[in-house]
Amino acid sequence: MTARKSGGLANTIAGETAISTVGKEGKGLTYRGYSIHDLAHYGTFEETAYLLLYGRLPDEDELLGYKLKLNRLRRLPDGLRSLLEHLPATMQPMDVLRTGISALAAFEPETADRGPRQIADRLLACGTSLLLYWHHFHTSGLRIDTEAPESASIAGHFLQLLHGRPPSELHEETLDVSLILYAEHEFNASTFAARVTASTLSDFYSSITTGIGTLRGPLHGGANEAAMELIERFTDADEAEKGVLQLLEQRQLVMGFGHRVYSISDPRSDIIKLWSATLSKEAGDTRLYPVSERIEEVMQRERQLFPNLDFYSASAYRFLGIPTDLFTPLFVLSRISGWSAHIIEQREGNRIIRPSALYVGPEPLSWVELADRR
Amino acid sequence: MTARKSGGLANTIAGETAISTVGKEGKGLTYRGYSIHDLAHYGTFEETAYLLLYGRLPDEDELLGYKLKLNRLRRLPDGLRSLLEHLPATMQPMDVLRTGISALAAFEPETADRGPRQIADRLLACGTSLLLYWHHFHTSGLRIDTEAPESASIAGHFLQLLHGRPPSELHEETLDVSLILYAEHEFNASTFAARVTASTLSDFYSSITTGIGTLRGPLHGGANEAAMELIERFTDADEAEKGVLQLLEQRQLVMGFGHRVYSISDPRSDIIKLWSATLSKEAGDTRLYPVSERIEEVMQRERQLFPNLDFYSASAYRFLGIPTDLFTPLFVLSRISGWSAHIIEQREGNRIIRPSALYVGPEPLSWVELADRR
Ligand SMILES: CC(C)(COP(=O)(O)OP(=O)(O)OC[C@H]1O[C@@H](n2cnc3c(N)ncnc32)[C@H](O)[C@@H]1OP(=O)(O)O)[C@@H](O)C(=O)NCCC(=O)NCCS
Ligand SMILES: CC(C)(COP(=O)(O)OP(=O)(O)OC[C@H]1O[C@@H](n2cnc3c(N)ncnc32)[C@H](O)[C@@H]1OP(=O)(O)O)[C@@H](O)C(=O)NCCC(=O)NCCS
Repeated sequence: MTARKSGGLANTIAGETAISTVGKEGKGLTYRGYSIHDLAHYGTFEETAYLLLYGRLPDEDELLGYKLKLNRLRRLPDGLRSLLEHLPATMQPMDVLRTGISALAAFEPETADRGPRQIADRLLACGTSLLLYWHHFHTSGLRIDTEAPESASIAGHFLQLLHGRPPSELHEETLDVSLILYAEHEFNASTFAARVTASTLSDFYSSITTGIGTLRGPLHGGANEAAMELIERFTDADEAEKGVLQLLEQRQLVMGFGHRVYSISDPRSDIIKLWSATLSKEAGDTRLYPVSERIEEVMQRERQLFPNLDFYSASAYRFLGIPTDLFTPLFVLSRISGWSAHIIEQREGNRIIRPSALYVGPEPLSWVELADRR
Repeated sequence: MTARKSGGLANTIAGETAISTVGKEGKGLTYRGYSIHDLAHYGTFEETAYLLLYGRLPDEDELLGYKLKLNRLRRLPDGLRSLLEHLPATMQPMDVLRTGISALAAFEPETADRGPRQIADRLLACGTSLLLYWHHFHTSGLRIDTEAPESASIAGHFLQLLHGRPPSELHEETLDVSLILYAEHEFNASTFAARVTASTLSDFYSSITTGIGTLRGPLHGGANEAAMELIERFTDADEAEKGVLQLLEQRQLVMGFGHRVYSISDPRSDIIKLWSATLSKEAGDTRLYPVSERIEEVMQRERQLFPNLDFYSASAYRFLGIPTDLFTPLFVLSRISGWSAHIIEQREGNRIIRPSALYVGPEPLSWVELADRR
């Protein structure tokens, strides 16, 4: 096998997983056997995270207990709060998450008593606190209380802390669905990178930090922010059509389209698109949604390319009043569940992930003394 | 290809590289064509880093200019210093490096004007400052001046900052050779993980952070600390023999032995072993070196396993007076050069690294209402 054919490890099986199926013939996308449609329709993000981390759906008592546990885990260590205050206001929120979670390792290191599932739950619960404590401190000087009303879900907690008031049911439900859709996606780049880190038997925080840094790129999680920037360039659908045709002519990527594994459509896109449509109607929007739909039409017609999850997530998040640079961080807050499940899976029956490379460099060269060079 | 056969991507070509050869028939280990023996014998770490980053050996003027540049880049931003002061004293030094370099992204972000080579040089120069500023602040309350005499090499800078006095020539040279040997090693786990991060077009700091978190594991860079802990368990060679035989009987790993790619020996081990022997003699040591040699003998005899670079690096570092928990961080300070060369290479003609997985989980399951579970 040559490296060119296997560029980017496309179609190369890098390991086994029991966590999810992506684009498997006849199976669609499932998390531990449950279809993404059922999860988004009937489930909540907390149930989904429990399913991914503990291997099965919780019963009523377990779910209640899990939600109470997550609520109790929202408080940040004092030391971490003061650290967040020392991070510059100009920092990228993705860099804040990467640095903040990396630093949390010092306050709450992984030990025999604090295992991977415990840390995963902690990060799911306090990730929002970490991000939004930094956000408010640096935008308005406020030291917010990161413990919102007991009853709130993770989606509700996020919207409550962001806006300083409880979200509407529609808004909380939209974000909840979005978190379900973002939770897990097999050997995507960030999950795979997190597994490589785990395969050296490094600690849990190192793997999560790897996941965050890898998700950050515009070809991966960063695509939701890039899609928003694209959509907001246009004042109406006709302008969008012209603009996108121009991008395609220049052979530029249109962010939020295409996928390594799916070839016809991304099953998650249809779901988030419906929620975006509902929010658009609620907001009386006559621009973002029509522009998005037209871009979809053009991409289908011109390149047979379909929107991936990131594309309609962008407008949905905008309708929820979320600043663009918090879009990819939200992806992190959800994907922590999938990364964690994969780190745990990788550790069971681990072998270090260390591929080979095709050498294409110079033949052996003789040493040249410093004075004789050039 | 099944996942079991390709476990850990052993023998799977994941891409092309022109940077180094590992275990290639008749080529041994070369960095951009130059043999590791020549580099360790005639070269310096600064020449090696220049070779890896800029693609060829520097001439006299270039090398002088490069060393001056590195010397000027040692100062930490004030904001980063105060951040380091806020990190707990109990933090693992590897976590300090991972967090500190992640945070530096905020003070000196990657931009069109601050490109990858510039950041790589900066990290090579200030990594020591970052690590040892934190170290001294938390062990003795000192805020050290991280700018040592102009003339010092990176190895000299490290030893000077650590011990507070200029190192002997022998000590500086030993560490310099060690940095050369640790600089680069093809698609090892941390480098490969850093390339996965780079393949999403994430920023430079994210990739380096991934590298650090991945190197941290005991199956990879962490092996030099684990080897030291093993060696120091024994008071003499006979005790070491008994102890290691016992470990092997219990089917435990002996850290610092074995390799994914090399099958007969690690060419770097012979080099560092000689330096360790010299330092042992200088120190009048009658324990660490003989214990190490006996462990080598037993591993060869019992398992045909050979020491990798990490094994004799451990005793060499101990003779230099370096605390064990700074061993893997030193590996980082050197490997930044290799990671950086790979990130730059990955970005040229990039394709996202996104493999497939073999699904071994449950068949599709029907949704069960919360009240009906269990
Ligand atoms: C997702 C993605 C990285 C998959 O990469 P991949 O499997 O390596 O896909 P390829 O680069 O082989 O794509 C095949 C062809 O479609 C084109 N293409 C793929 N996605 C495209 C997009 N979003 N816009 C324009 N063209 C695109 C490629 O340029 C390539 O064309 P070529 O054969 O003429 O070179 C890629 O589709 C992409 O970059 N999309 C935009 C970023 C994005 O939305 N990421 C989030 C993914 S969930
Ligand atoms: C480097 C290393 C991770 C390579 O992993 P790998 O290519 O997957 O090697 P494998 O696990 O397939 O090793 C083959 C056999 O040798 C054994 N083996 C390998 N290294 C060993 C060691 N250091 N001590 C004892 N047994 C070892 C393995 O247990 C395996 O035995 P098995 O076939 O009975 O299961 C592995 O040798 C190791 O863990 N070494 C110790 C850690 C270390 O020094 N790392 C630094 C590397 S530079």
